[in-house]
Amino acid sequence: MPTSFLGSALRGTFLSTLGLWWSVRYPLRYLRRNSDAQSQPSCGAQRLEVLEGAVKAFFALAGILVEQFVPTGPHLQLYSHKTHSWMELTHWHYSTMYLFFLLSGIVDIASHSPLKLPLGLDRLMLAVALLIEGLLFCFHDYSDAALDHHLYSLLAVAIFAGALCAFLEVFLRDHIILETFRTSSFLLQGSWLWQIGFVLSPPWGGPGWDQTDHSNFTFLTMCFCWHYAGALLVLAANSAASRCCNESCQLKFGDIDVELDCGMCIRRGNKSSDGALLPESPSEDK
Amino acid sequence: MPTSFLGSALRGTFLSTLGLWWSVRYPLRYLRRNSDAQSQPSCGAQRLEVLEGAVKAFFALAGILVEQFVPTGPHLQLYSHKTHSWMELTHWHYSTMYLFFLLSGIVDIASHSPLKLPLGLDRLMLAVALLIEGLLFCFHDYSDAALDHHLYSLLAVAIFAGALCAFLEVFLRDHIILETFRTSSFLLQGSWLWQIGFVLSPPWGGPGWDQTDHSNFTFLTMCFCWHYAGALLVLAANSAASRCCNESCQLKFGDIDVELDCGMCIRRGNKSSDGALLPESPSEDK
Amino acid sequence: MPTSFLGSALRGTFLSTLGLWWSVRYPLRYLRRNSDAQSQPSCGAQRLEVLEGAVKAFFALAGILVEQFVPTGPHLQLYSHKTHSWMELTHWHYSTMYLFFLLSGIVDIASHSPLKLPLGLDRLMLAVALLIEGLLFCFHDYSDAALDHHLYSLLAVAIFAGALCAFLEVFLRDHIILETFRTSSFLLQGSWLWQIGFVLSPPWGGPGWDQTDHSNFTFLTMCFCWHYAGALLVLAANSAASRCCNESCQLKFGDIDVELDCGMCIRRGNKSSDGALLPESPSEDK
Amino acid sequence: MPTSFLGSALRGTFLSTLGLWWSVRYPLRYLRRNSDAQSQPSCGAQRLEVLEGAVKAFFALAGILVEQFVPTGPHLQLYSHKTHSWMELTHWHYSTMYLFFLLSGIVDIASHSPLKLPLGLDRLMLAVALLIEGLLFCFHDYSDAALDHHLYSLLAVAIFAGALCAFLEVFLRDHIILETFRTSSFLLQGSWLWQIGFVLSPPWGGPGWDQTDHSNFTFLTMCFCWHYAGALLVLAANSAASRCCNESCQLKFGDIDVELDCGMCIRRGNKSSDGALLPESPSEDK
Repeated sequence: MPTSFLGSALRGTFLSTLGLWWSVRYPLRYLRRNSDAQSQPSCGAQRLEVLEGAVKAFFALAGILVEQFVPTGPHLQLYSHKTHSWMELTHWHYSTMYLFFLLSGIVDIASHSPLKLPLGLDRLMLAVALLIEGLLFCFHDYSDAALDHHLYSLLAVAIFAGALCAFLEVFLRDHIILETFRTSSFLLQGSWLWQIGFVLSPPWGGPGWDQTDHSNFTFLTMCFCWHYAGALLVLAANSAASRCCNESCQLKFGDIDVELDCGMCIRRGNKSSDGALLPESPSEDK
Repeated sequence: MPTSFLGSALRGTFLSTLGLWWSVRYPLRYLRRNSDAQSQPSCGAQRLEVLEGAVKAFFALAGILVEQFVPTGPHLQLYSHKTHSWMELTHWHYSTMYLFFLLSGIVDIASHSPLKLPLGLDRLMLAVALLIEGLLFCFHDYSDAALDHHLYSLLAVAIFAGALCAFLEVFLRDHIILETFRTSSFLLQGSWLWQIGFVLSPPWGGPGWDQTDHSNFTFLTMCFCWHYAGALLVLAANSAASRCCNESCQLKFGDIDVELDCGMCIRRGNKSSDGALLPESPSEDK
Repeated sequence: MPTSFLGSALRGTFLSTLGLWWSVRYPLRYLRRNSDAQSQPSCGAQRLEVLEGAVKAFFALAGILVEQFVPTGPHLQLYSHKTHSWMELTHWHYSTMYLFFLLSGIVDIASHSPLKLPLGLDRLMLAVALLIEGLLFCFHDYSDAALDHHLYSLLAVAIFAGALCAFLEVFLRDHIILETFRTSSFLLQGSWLWQIGFVLSPPWGGPGWDQTDHSNFTFLTMCFCWHYAGALLVLAANSAASRCCNESCQLKFGDIDVELDCGMCIRRGNKSSDGALLPESPSEDK
Repeated sequence: MPTSFLGSALRGTFLSTLGLWWSVRYPLRYLRRNSDAQSQPSCGAQRLEVLEGAVKAFFALAGILVEQFVPTGPHLQLYSHKTHSWMELTHWHYSTMYLFFLLSGIVDIASHSPLKLPLGLDRLMLAVALLIEGLLFCFHDYSDAALDHHLYSLLAVAIFAGALCAFLEVFLRDHIILETFRTSSFLLQGSWLWQIGFVLSPPWGGPGWDQTDHSNFTFLTMCFCWHYAGALLVLAANSAASRCCNESCQLKFGDIDVELDCGMCIRRGNKSSDGALLPESPSEDK
């Protein structure tokens, strides 16, 4: 599987951004829930989740289109009858991966629509998307590229950790520890994809690292651990920043926040002005 | 293990049909339970489960008989003393597999009989049947057929996912997300068995795909993911159809439905005419 | 690891007997609990568990002594300074295995003593004993004996299934489905050890089966499944027999049963004559 | 990976000491909770946990510094531009390992600070530290040293068992069985690291054991089991000693104990003199 730096970096940026976003959102939600003692998710929180799903679906769709229609891409053609061979399987490989993130994004959106999908289906689809991603990297044919295999095996560890976490969240929804662990897994995947890009196809040209030097393998295993330590530090810094921000904002913008949160509610129910008759949210916890 | 197209397709059809049936049944049950707010399973639902078990057992038994008594089959003979070798182990392999689905079907039936089997035993037997199926494919000897091994390894992934799901259902019975995941696993197994048939022994004759071309392996891994995406779409379509059907039928056939559901109850308890004194079901949730 | 028929058969008999005993005890307890609606374990049930632990510990201790002091055994000597080699590692291997079953038996006894060990420690020790057994078989050196490796790998599957089950019982104590699955795992281990004996060192002399014939591997994988089907049938038959026995006995021996159960209680508390003031049992469920 | 006896022994001592400390602390806490029927953790218990975290973090930091600045260490230099090779990767390997134990120690301290970290984060970080440790040993390059690989694989079994246990404790906090199992895993890791030191680089000089003799592998697998049996005995002895000590101390030092426990509380709340108005602890169980 020839790795291009640009592709790897774009994928890494997508996953890191998702992780960074969660590293701000989940601590904030955790803090608010504790301070307000409201188990009811607000309308604002729901709109954010719909937006998150839409952004995820949009980038996944963009990813599929880019993979298919870049000049070296397969342009939706799977088999070449001229050369009697499969067309550009690497591009198809990533298109498949994005397809499942697209499905996950669509289910995220549908979960907050009036369709009343069963609670937890969004987490299951996220777990499935990660499982498929891991499966694709595990069953890939690395034939003679031992370093590629090593790097993508380490990536698969991060992916499966995230998948396990998302699967557990089907049963233990809104568990802050699981969400933290999942966030760290996405940050790790993101930064590790950047590392893979630098190792296998450096942006300044030239060949990748030596595939036969065993000390490279040992170093990269350690490097993976450092990336995770970095991910944890980013997570801690963002959580701390969220907390500071939350505390300083709560006094100033308390009223605005309520207004923003309940804008939709007002339009729907016209009863939230007294603050007591909030309409039932479609996906309340059982 | 020589794969015949017909055998693979029949097995695929059996598993797909089971998956399709569940993809209609579980959403319908989920919707009714929500709308009626009755946790009590109705008599009709129980009779459906008995019927499902009976059909499963019948097809498994038919499968055993067909595997044994087709012209090339072993006719229940295990060892040939003439050639000093085992007889037709592939047929025995599938007979063994069907045997555990037969046991699972029998336990399904017995669970709803007056025997009062402990709740969850039917799910355990389904998990066991899937584990045995996976074990048989994993420990099989693929010697020189690398593509066979690859295809059946992917099948084993789907099988073990289903087995894990069924095992979790022992503890979390009637969990719609787990049921959805199990259904998708069966649809995937079914369609993948069709794919295996087309790849290893095409129905239009000729040899199977090239066992040494590595791009075939990469393509088939992706293809497995597409089958899963297809299974998810079928699942979504059937759920949507069930919902539409449920909503349109509820008004028209509300009374008929109650009558159908409680036919057995009437015969048993003679008290359901007033609709309030439903007899206790033998396997109510604890 | 040279396998002797007698050793394998004795081990198999031990594990099968344990499985058979459980296949009678657990259904009986399940039925009584349902009919009496008493969650309190009776004194008789506790004495049975102590007895079970004692028998397990006794046989494990006997096993260690036999392994060490048979004529070909190491007689507690680990290293021979004459030949500069380890002494009879196979005997030491099985002694180690029995040691953990001995510990498990001791913890079983101690759990029901006035020591008030935390509930679930007996299940953890059983899980540990099985994990160690599986570990010893997995990390063993089968060097050139591929058939030995195959047979013991299948055994390890049964062992780890039992270990997982016992570990889950730490958290879900007295769960009839888990107990049933554990029982079936022990029956399978027992009968498979007999099979291993017949395959690798037939009692009628002569060499074991051909280690190079691949059809033997396929046949033995299937054979393992048939053993499991057999184990399930034995389990079903014993459960059915327990039920019949329970129903016919309940009327006749109701009073005797109460007396037997509460003999110890009477001696302890002198209050069970009125049947209402049963003393608190030391290991009641939390 | 060249193993030095001193390094291995120091690591083993660190992990064993942690295990020994837990083997006294957890039984004592279990006994007190049962006798007092107070689910509220006392201030003394919290200060002990902070101290434990601080000691863990201190030793991890010391470990990093020692690994870096011993004469043969890399002195924080990662790549030698002179020789165009990585510097002393083994030292970096252990530094990485200690880094995560340092993070775990810091989170332990922060969990009991007024920061109100979500409950269970300390257990997650311990699980992560163990996972990283296991990952580093699993993905290490043992190239031609089969015995090293075998010894560290067995160590990894102990590490992953501990990691699984710590991860389960995120959800089942203060579960005495899980704590016992985790403690035994640490004792095993500690003593096994001593064993590794003796086998691979004996302190009396000379080469390690023969890497090609297969009976060494079999013996060391058994030896690992004996270490675990030893760990269990130490655990049992310490629990018994804790119990004796607890019972004899409860009468004599009951008042002193209360004073020690509530010293901090008095300073904080000035209300514990009457024994009824204990201040709320920041990390009470949900």
